[in-house]
Amino acid sequence: MALIVQKFGGTSVKDRNRIFNVARIVMNTRNAGNDVVVVVSAQGDTTDDLIAKAAEITSDPSHREMDMLLATGEQISIALLTMALQELGVSAISLTGWQAGFNTDRAYSKARIKRLDTERVESELARNRVVVVAGFQGLNRSDDITTLGRGGSDTSAVALAAALHADRCQIFTDVEGVYTADPRKIPKATKLKEITFDEMLELASLGAQVLNNRSVELAKKYNVELEVISSINPVPGTIVKEETNVEGMLIKGVAKDNDVAVISIKNVPDVPGMSFKVFSLLAQKNINVDIILQSSGSEGKKDLSFTVPLGDAEAAVSALNSAASRFGGGEISVDKNSAKVSIVGAGMQSHSGVASTMFEALFSQNINIKMISTSEIKISVIIDKQDADKAVAAIHDAFIN
Amino acid sequence: MALIVQKFGGTSVKDRNRIFNVARIVMNTRNAGNDVVVVVSAQGDTTDDLIAKAAEITSDPSHREMDMLLATGEQISIALLTMALQELGVSAISLTGWQAGFNTDRAYSKARIKRLDTERVESELARNRVVVVAGFQGLNRSDDITTLGRGGSDTSAVALAAALHADRCQIFTDVEGVYTADPRKIPKATKLKEITFDEMLELASLGAQVLNNRSVELAKKYNVELEVISSINPVPGTIVKEETNVEGMLIKGVAKDNDVAVISIKNVPDVPGMSFKVFSLLAQKNINVDIILQSSGSEGKKDLSFTVPLGDAEAAVSALNSAASRFGGGEISVDKNSAKVSIVGAGMQSHSGVASTMFEALFSQNINIKMISTSEIKISVIIDKQDADKAVAAIHDAFIN
Repeated sequence: MALIVQKFGGTSVKDRNRIFNVARIVMNTRNAGNDVVVVVSAQGDTTDDLIAKAAEITSDPSHREMDMLLATGEQISIALLTMALQELGVSAISLTGWQAGFNTDRAYSKARIKRLDTERVESELARNRVVVVAGFQGLNRSDDITTLGRGGSDTSAVALAAALHADRCQIFTDVEGVYTADPRKIPKATKLKEITFDEMLELASLGAQVLNNRSVELAKKYNVELEVISSINPVPGTIVKEETNVEGMLIKGVAKDNDVAVISIKNVPDVPGMSFKVFSLLAQKNINVDIILQSSGSEGKKDLSFTVPLGDAEAAVSALNSAASRFGGGEISVDKNSAKVSIVGAGMQSHSGVASTMFEALFSQNINIKMISTSEIKISVIIDKQDADKAVAAIHDAFIN
Repeated sequence: MALIVQKFGGTSVKDRNRIFNVARIVMNTRNAGNDVVVVVSAQGDTTDDLIAKAAEITSDPSHREMDMLLATGEQISIALLTMALQELGVSAISLTGWQAGFNTDRAYSKARIKRLDTERVESELARNRVVVVAGFQGLNRSDDITTLGRGGSDTSAVALAAALHADRCQIFTDVEGVYTADPRKIPKATKLKEITFDEMLELASLGAQVLNNRSVELAKKYNVELEVISSINPVPGTIVKEETNVEGMLIKGVAKDNDVAVISIKNVPDVPGMSFKVFSLLAQKNINVDIILQSSGSEGKKDLSFTVPLGDAEAAVSALNSAASRFGGGEISVDKNSAKVSIVGAGMQSHSGVASTMFEALFSQNINIKMISTSEIKISVIIDKQDADKAVAAIHDAFIN
């Protein structure tokens, strides 16, 4: 008898038929002899509808009241799914975030879980009930409802799995698992049987939006085995865990990220503290910098290039312009026509030739590389956006097929 | 500085404009120097929409899950109204039923308030905030969400006013107060300045659906002064309190109730225990009997007539038929063509001539009286349904105009 946490997103419970589809998956898991805790998100468009209601009232709602409003979405889902389970003859009970013991900090709309009191969930499991928990929400020290922010239901599920020492946490989505590349773009992309937490983190941050990063980090921290699995066709999906043993699978995935702007500052004085001045300015504006490239410099000057999310490009440029005198008045330019293409694989650093194979694949397609960044488990290149799909295909061919 | 509890129903907060209308009423009350606690129901059709969602899943939802589902309706309302208040510059905070301290028994879907812990509400008032509370809901001893059943938000408001020792509890509706008769039918009907709890209870049970009876009973029990007032045109409405001092206003209202069936049993043996047998049979079926008339009897037989709600008539007749032998096999008949017309006024018993004035008014219109029932503060007659409106007008003319 295993304990399994199953998480279903908003699309998976968007209407009556999808709710019963989920109820049957849960029933089958239960009938196979497992204890089951289910975490659900708000139905389909519910959250957007609630946000629209608030927008009619005010353009600047208080975060506390917004959380009060949005938390109703998951509460509706848990009640309906529990009714469906009961209709199928499965003993079940719904619990809101606060009933399930999610204690968070005070940061409305992006709260972090501080403590999880599993007493109620465990007592319901002991009564042989399937426990249906509202994801995305918790309670702060003032007894006020909070929400966990984007991807919050994944985080709720992983936190519950960790606190309950569950045997597995299954994240049900509309895809069948994690692929070596986007299967809509690369027909030869294959589903991975296993992937490590670190590889998953790199792939997620590189634009392969399958799992929310925060939930993967939490799963890594508490060593919760995840499975990414389809709610439409629940065949075995992709297991995400600490170490994998898949032989010969050096590169786990090729990912593309179009959300990249390259900002360059020419002729920065080559004196100590210049990088600090630039990047502390951006940090103050909450702008995340990814790849940084610094030219080696000549005649006491150097060039600085770095990437930021596309949506932050204008804010970054205007912040830099307003302080341009501090950087010696060098010319600031922004390039929004770039994409980042990356390969991820935990073992690549100990294998020679990975980078050269990647660069050869790009060269074979006559694709120019603008920037390069490497880490232990990934290599990223910045190239022209128009070349990105061709690049992913060529790299995927070189490594995986 | 007074403390005022204001309750707004679902129609009053059904959309953005109505929400801001309510927010302005609250703001004006606040700006007049009062502390304000607001109780709101779910928006317009929200509850019906949620019930429809559940009906798609199951024809027999668990009451617990139904309460979990329905409680989201008021939670949406309190968040939106609080946002509107904040948008108008009014410091405000929303509280769910459980946050506001409503502790109930375990009876899902028709829970009764056991205890109200006002600590949180009082601490928010002390911070100069308008407190916006979700009506209709509470928490039972298992920390599970309950709802109070029909008219629950009125009850929530009165309970809060009682526990907080509020100076007044205003129930906002779509009518401007309590009238001497239905103003849509009797153009001369006038709005009452004041009415006693007992008179209000009689009027409500007689078909003048302004206030929920349970909330009036609670207000009477804790001596909470109520005001029935319009949310569209919030001029002074009708005050409901223990004693009124309106001179010369003997009769407070004339009410009509079409929801009446008269059941007759002919030739019941005139022996002890017969009435008990009849009415205990109906009590077992949860059928409320209102007016009872018993003929004086002759030759060891008597006739028994009584009224029940129209919807219960068939059930009553079939229950009686199945046990007809116990009543000597007397003929059982049902009359669905009657109406009950009543006058209500706390002082009528000490004034002679009230009944005769009423009967004279009916006689002047040539209306036949089938049954008569009197109590300390009301006189009811059962007449033909087709005569009911004419009767109300004639009686209203005789007493009020």
